[in-house]
Amino acid sequence: MESMMIYMPIAMAILGLIYMIIKQSWVMKQDSGDGKMKEISDHIYEGALAFLNAEYRLLSIFVVIVSVLLAVVAYFVPTTSYLIVIAFICGAIFSAFAGNIGMKIATKTNVRTTQAAKTSLPSALKISFGGGTVMGLGVAGLAVLGLTAFFIIFYKFVFMPDGWTNTEDMTLVLETLAGFSLGAESIALFARVGGGIYTKAADVGADLVGKVEAGIPEDDPRNPATIADNVGDNVGDVAGMGADLFGSYVATVLAAMVLGNYVIKDMGGNIDDAFGGIGPILLPMSIAGVGIIISIIGTLLVKINSNDAKEPEVMGALNRGNWVSIALVAAACYGLVTWMLPETMQMNFFGEGTIEVSSMRVFYSTLVGLFVGAVISSVTEYYTGLGKKPILKIVQQSSTGAGTNIIAGLATGMISTFPSVLLFAAAIWSSYALAGFYGVALAASAMMATTAMQLAIDAFGPISDNAGGIAEMSEQDPIVRERTDILDSVGNTTAATGKGFAIASAALTSLALFAAYVTFTGIDGINIFKAPVLAMLFVGGMVPVVFSALAMNAVGKAAMEMVEEVRRQFKEIPGIMEGTGKPEYDKCVAISTKASLKEMMLPGLLTIGFPLVIAFVPLLFGMHHLAVAEMLGGYMAGVTVSGVLWAIFQNNAGGAWDNAKKSFEAGVEINGEMTYKGSDAHKAAVTGDTVGDPFKDTSGPSMNILIKLTCLIGLVIAPILGGHADTGVAHTEDVTIEKQMVADSNVAEAVIIYTIVVNGETVVKTETFKGVKTDVETKIKAFEADNNARIEADKKIIKSVNVKKG
Amino acid sequence: MESMMIYMPIAMAILGLIYMIIKQSWVMKQDSGDGKMKEISDHIYEGALAFLNAEYRLLSIFVVIVSVLLAVVAYFVPTTSYLIVIAFICGAIFSAFAGNIGMKIATKTNVRTTQAAKTSLPSALKISFGGGTVMGLGVAGLAVLGLTAFFIIFYKFVFMPDGWTNTEDMTLVLETLAGFSLGAESIALFARVGGGIYTKAADVGADLVGKVEAGIPEDDPRNPATIADNVGDNVGDVAGMGADLFGSYVATVLAAMVLGNYVIKDMGGNIDDAFGGIGPILLPMSIAGVGIIISIIGTLLVKINSNDAKEPEVMGALNRGNWVSIALVAAACYGLVTWMLPETMQMNFFGEGTIEVSSMRVFYSTLVGLFVGAVISSVTEYYTGLGKKPILKIVQQSSTGAGTNIIAGLATGMISTFPSVLLFAAAIWSSYALAGFYGVALAASAMMATTAMQLAIDAFGPISDNAGGIAEMSEQDPIVRERTDILDSVGNTTAATGKGFAIASAALTSLALFAAYVTFTGIDGINIFKAPVLAMLFVGGMVPVVFSALAMNAVGKAAMEMVEEVRRQFKEIPGIMEGTGKPEYDKCVAISTKASLKEMMLPGLLTIGFPLVIAFVPLLFGMHHLAVAEMLGGYMAGVTVSGVLWAIFQNNAGGAWDNAKKSFEAGVEINGEMTYKGSDAHKAAVTGDTVGDPFKDTSGPSMNILIKLTCLIGLVIAPILGGHADTGVAHTEDVTIEKQMVADSNVAEAVIIYTIVVNGETVVKTETFKGVKTDVETKIKAFEADNNARIEADKKIIKSVNVKKG
Repeated sequence: MESMMIYMPIAMAILGLIYMIIKQSWVMKQDSGDGKMKEISDHIYEGALAFLNAEYRLLSIFVVIVSVLLAVVAYFVPTTSYLIVIAFICGAIFSAFAGNIGMKIATKTNVRTTQAAKTSLPSALKISFGGGTVMGLGVAGLAVLGLTAFFIIFYKFVFMPDGWTNTEDMTLVLETLAGFSLGAESIALFARVGGGIYTKAADVGADLVGKVEAGIPEDDPRNPATIADNVGDNVGDVAGMGADLFGSYVATVLAAMVLGNYVIKDMGGNIDDAFGGIGPILLPMSIAGVGIIISIIGTLLVKINSNDAKEPEVMGALNRGNWVSIALVAAACYGLVTWMLPETMQMNFFGEGTIEVSSMRVFYSTLVGLFVGAVISSVTEYYTGLGKKPILKIVQQSSTGAGTNIIAGLATGMISTFPSVLLFAAAIWSSYALAGFYGVALAASAMMATTAMQLAIDAFGPISDNAGGIAEMSEQDPIVRERTDILDSVGNTTAATGKGFAIASAALTSLALFAAYVTFTGIDGINIFKAPVLAMLFVGGMVPVVFSALAMNAVGKAAMEMVEEVRRQFKEIPGIMEGTGKPEYDKCVAISTKASLKEMMLPGLLTIGFPLVIAFVPLLFGMHHLAVAEMLGGYMAGVTVSGVLWAIFQNNAGGAWDNAKKSFEAGVEINGEMTYKGSDAHKAAVTGDTVGDPFKDTSGPSMNILIKLTCLIGLVIAPILGGHADTGVAHTEDVTIEKQMVADSNVAEAVIIYTIVVNGETVVKTETFKGVKTDVETKIKAFEADNNARIEADKKIIKSVNVKKG
Repeated sequence: MESMMIYMPIAMAILGLIYMIIKQSWVMKQDSGDGKMKEISDHIYEGALAFLNAEYRLLSIFVVIVSVLLAVVAYFVPTTSYLIVIAFICGAIFSAFAGNIGMKIATKTNVRTTQAAKTSLPSALKISFGGGTVMGLGVAGLAVLGLTAFFIIFYKFVFMPDGWTNTEDMTLVLETLAGFSLGAESIALFARVGGGIYTKAADVGADLVGKVEAGIPEDDPRNPATIADNVGDNVGDVAGMGADLFGSYVATVLAAMVLGNYVIKDMGGNIDDAFGGIGPILLPMSIAGVGIIISIIGTLLVKINSNDAKEPEVMGALNRGNWVSIALVAAACYGLVTWMLPETMQMNFFGEGTIEVSSMRVFYSTLVGLFVGAVISSVTEYYTGLGKKPILKIVQQSSTGAGTNIIAGLATGMISTFPSVLLFAAAIWSSYALAGFYGVALAASAMMATTAMQLAIDAFGPISDNAGGIAEMSEQDPIVRERTDILDSVGNTTAATGKGFAIASAALTSLALFAAYVTFTGIDGINIFKAPVLAMLFVGGMVPVVFSALAMNAVGKAAMEMVEEVRRQFKEIPGIMEGTGKPEYDKCVAISTKASLKEMMLPGLLTIGFPLVIAFVPLLFGMHHLAVAEMLGGYMAGVTVSGVLWAIFQNNAGGAWDNAKKSFEAGVEINGEMTYKGSDAHKAAVTGDTVGDPFKDTSGPSMNILIKLTCLIGLVIAPILGGHADTGVAHTEDVTIEKQMVADSNVAEAVIIYTIVVNGETVVKTETFKGVKTDVETKIKAFEADNNARIEADKKIIKSVNVKKG
């Protein structure tokens, strides 16, 4: 059984996808309502498809360019394989396909939810959450399927057809696999940023001319931008979020695999386990696989029975599913970790030497990840939730005008970084202390195991929002809108907490990628006391800030185009305001599509261009490749730290403003007086929400992709910069081992110096052992004994390079 | 002459102070106008004094607490001296005294400027700029006087009475001297933060009730908060900015001295020059000393002749003075560097070994600093200047409401980090590449050399602003206000560029302190691949964000108290609106004073508490002191990177909103139509300015102090964490040198291992030489020859510790 474990994740992924197809056909079989409803839904469906098609056209150009670049790199750098191009293209296709499934099901489920809401709330929840489940399983299933399939192909058929050889070969496998992750994350960049611009441009355009200038209500069918607005909800919140988590999922598991390989290396390059010697590498894949099944169980628990249920019951049903799946993942982690890992492992802690780590400590790391995932949602909920202190304060400050409302919202977003960052810092520290960077990566893997469930909870929000829109546009009974509003309201909360989860996952994923990068390049670490590294830390810190500004400006520009189009239609189409003239919805959809795709170019270029410039310009000027690797590492750290901060700040400030505005709908008490919609204070709150919209839906969520993609690009170019580029083509010709011990002391230090010949050039390498004298002696003996093995290993690498190139 | 150079800076400082006294008495002799003007001016003077006295009372408690803490540390840690307490107290007193001089002269000059404006613009400029000059020279003179006097006392009379001994003793001198810098920066924290809160609370309070609710113009004498508002200009812009630059000045020179000491260490611990062997340490002091005289020359060039002059002529006069002083500093740097430094130096570049650096390369570093100081002002000017593209865009976006105005302002501030950070990064990199961290510190020193001139330009703004206020309140001829408005308008521009200069100085100072910290602790560098260090990088990045939020909230709270008081007075004092009842100005002043001092506590605690917690809690839990030192270094880097970003973002966004609002005064073209004050677009711009006020005057400028103080606290506790705490009490008992060379290779590496006994415990130390074989051989010989010297040096440290403790 153990030897078959490599196929377990793929089996689970396929099971998940089968369940998805069953669920999908069940949703599709539901009644999609009368003619008007169907017509509106079709408009949304077509608009969404139009966006996706336009996006995919653009992306295929992008994919071709990057593929050529990767092929060129593979040609010139002997340690990289052409197969990375295939992996990259498939990563992009899988991610796009997952987005496609999500968008299609979301735009088909919305009208069915409206129809179900005519009869009862429980069935409306069942359908909308069913749509979300399809989306979640599609993303998670394809992510695991793609990643594990490529791993098996590269491992079993290309690089190590005869079974485990050594960690260097496995590094080649994983470096090639990084292409899949890069492809997925590239799609995510454009889906998140483009989607974010799309949704806000349509929203602002529809509101500014429709609500404010023409005085017609939200989702009014006379508003030409209303379809674009509803498409936007799907494009941004469904496809964008899906691509984001698809990327995180793949990257997290990959990073954990890379670090698992380094655990094997630290243990001497070989472990003798029942899993073909790759237990630590298989573990994150297995957790991901089991997570899919657990998510299915979780989704089955989400249901309500009473037709009179309100928000708390719906929220309760979602929470039940969520908590149960988290608990099951914890249990599964215990089982998998103790089964798949050696009871004790040796891990090399930077600056502390090799430390014995028990498999239980790895399990505790996974608990850290699950804890962070759960707590970050509560933190987000506190700072952005209706009725909570921060929101009440913003409401209070709205009474003195828009200026004080804005200040209060900004301050709330800023303050919210305090608990979030302390939580992340504690998580990094503790999971590292438990099991090194492998622990950090497994914490992230455990947290991401429930991705399918998280996405189901997340996607049901915009579906319900759309359902409400369709009810409004097709002029249904008020009871229908009331029911969808309950779902929508819960969806707003889950949207905020889902963003918290997405940030946490991006942060931990980036750290794991960062650690994988350092191990890939073989640098000693990233020392910010070197001025070029420090300078790049500064530059990296600046990029998320500028990226956010570009995204916000993009929304502004795209919205202005939308405003002009809506104004034009109101003026030129006769009878449009009376409901006799038909608005040209497709023109608005086209504008949003075109503008968002155009405007995402510059931020995209910034994200991809900066790391490439930092890596290649100094190389061209003759800087040493390891120095460049360290600089790029500094840049990655800067982007991650600053990106996480700006993500939290912008998401929470945006969420807080949104709910401060919504507070006025039920009425709020300001200085002892009840204040409602339409008051001056409410107007101030609306201004705050206008500022918050691009914060929370465009620039804030884009930060996730920015930090992950930056670290992934680093990982992909790591072989070019890396130290193991040396040894990869090295031939150990001349090994001179010298050692010395310190006399008259219990403490001992031994330094072993040996030379290897890399491409004909002699390189001096040292290895240092420190500690109690007897330990050091043992280690020296092992090193000497290992000498022949090392020469063999170097030869092996040459062989495998030859195989790869042949 | 060379041997007397140590007294040169002190002589220059005294010269500067003498010139300051002459200038001061000249200003005081000017006509202070009629009864009403004098009365208002006296109110402002008394209000400012009341704030200063209240602040000093509070600060003396703070100084006592910190002094006790420092004394406790000095008692327990053998490598620190009790004298640091004296230095700390004097640093605080000197900084407070400099602030006092500035506030007094500013509040005396304002009315004299108003009086002079009755006759002519040139004499109004002469007087207001004269006041600024007094302020600038007071700050620079006292900074150089205090720092150099303490250096001479510690060096010549306490630690090395018989002349140069070794770099370890000099490290003790400089560590003790760090107390002076810490004292100065502590005062700056409270002056900047407290002043920032004060000025905005009074401003918002005066505007909200006076202008908006009661409909009376700005600076109307019937407004009870108007005096507090004018006091605030002095408290924030004069005393706050003065304390900020006082702190930067001292810290920069100190950091450069520390790094100069390490240059001597890298050169073998001894250089034989005409300056008593301390040329590299004296150089930054000398540049500062000469800078004072150069600044006096610069101020003499600031004058205009025509009474019909407008803003460009006034600006031109200021620019002339500024550019000439920068050019003179460049010339002086050339002379001093080539005269005082050895022609070539050996500097140890981390990871690259020892490199030969010519003194000319140090000179080029100073040019880098001067370049950054000049360019950052232009960058700031571009993003915040009237009529520039970013401002026009914000104006344009104001037409669609406050929301879009806010987004545009935020985006402008965010985008402005792009050129600024690239500039800083390029400066760090290039000055480091030229001459290591000594080069970075000297770049900062050169930039700061014109501090007196910069402050004169800076302080003249609020003086002119006040002069205009007095003209308004005492109901002078419109021509008087027109003239003061010209000065005020130029003052607004110089205020923005001055903030750019302050950020640049804070950034470079922090980097220099950071480098000094690493050398003080003796750690290998700061490796962010260690998870605890990375976690602290995150925490450090979060602190400026939370600090900013606290400062903004503080303004809100303090402003609310002011609003209530003004409302109360309008209601309760009979005849106040008719001008027959006298407003109780002092009550408003008292409220601003009390509120600002209360509200600055929490941010202050955050600033000081975080580094202490990070250093001492892990120590208590038994973490190794070098690991703690590295973590604290990570924290410092996080604060610096994030702090610089948030400083630029907030200052420039605030400045941009301010000038977007001001654009409406002259009228702006929006969509082809001229739009003026009172329009909807203008109202939107006013909202933006409300948000921008605390950004640019409270939280933004506080960032400078936050990052400098964080790095200084690190520097002061460095001896506790430091590696040289070991060797400080070490006795080299058992030196075993072993070495080995690699055969059959041109490249060689030698590792020398020796043990020393530290407090009875044996510690193994290694020293590694890499490079061409013959070089390595030479170095090993030098190391062996140096062995006896090293034992002597260790004995010496024991001796000097004994002397210190006796």
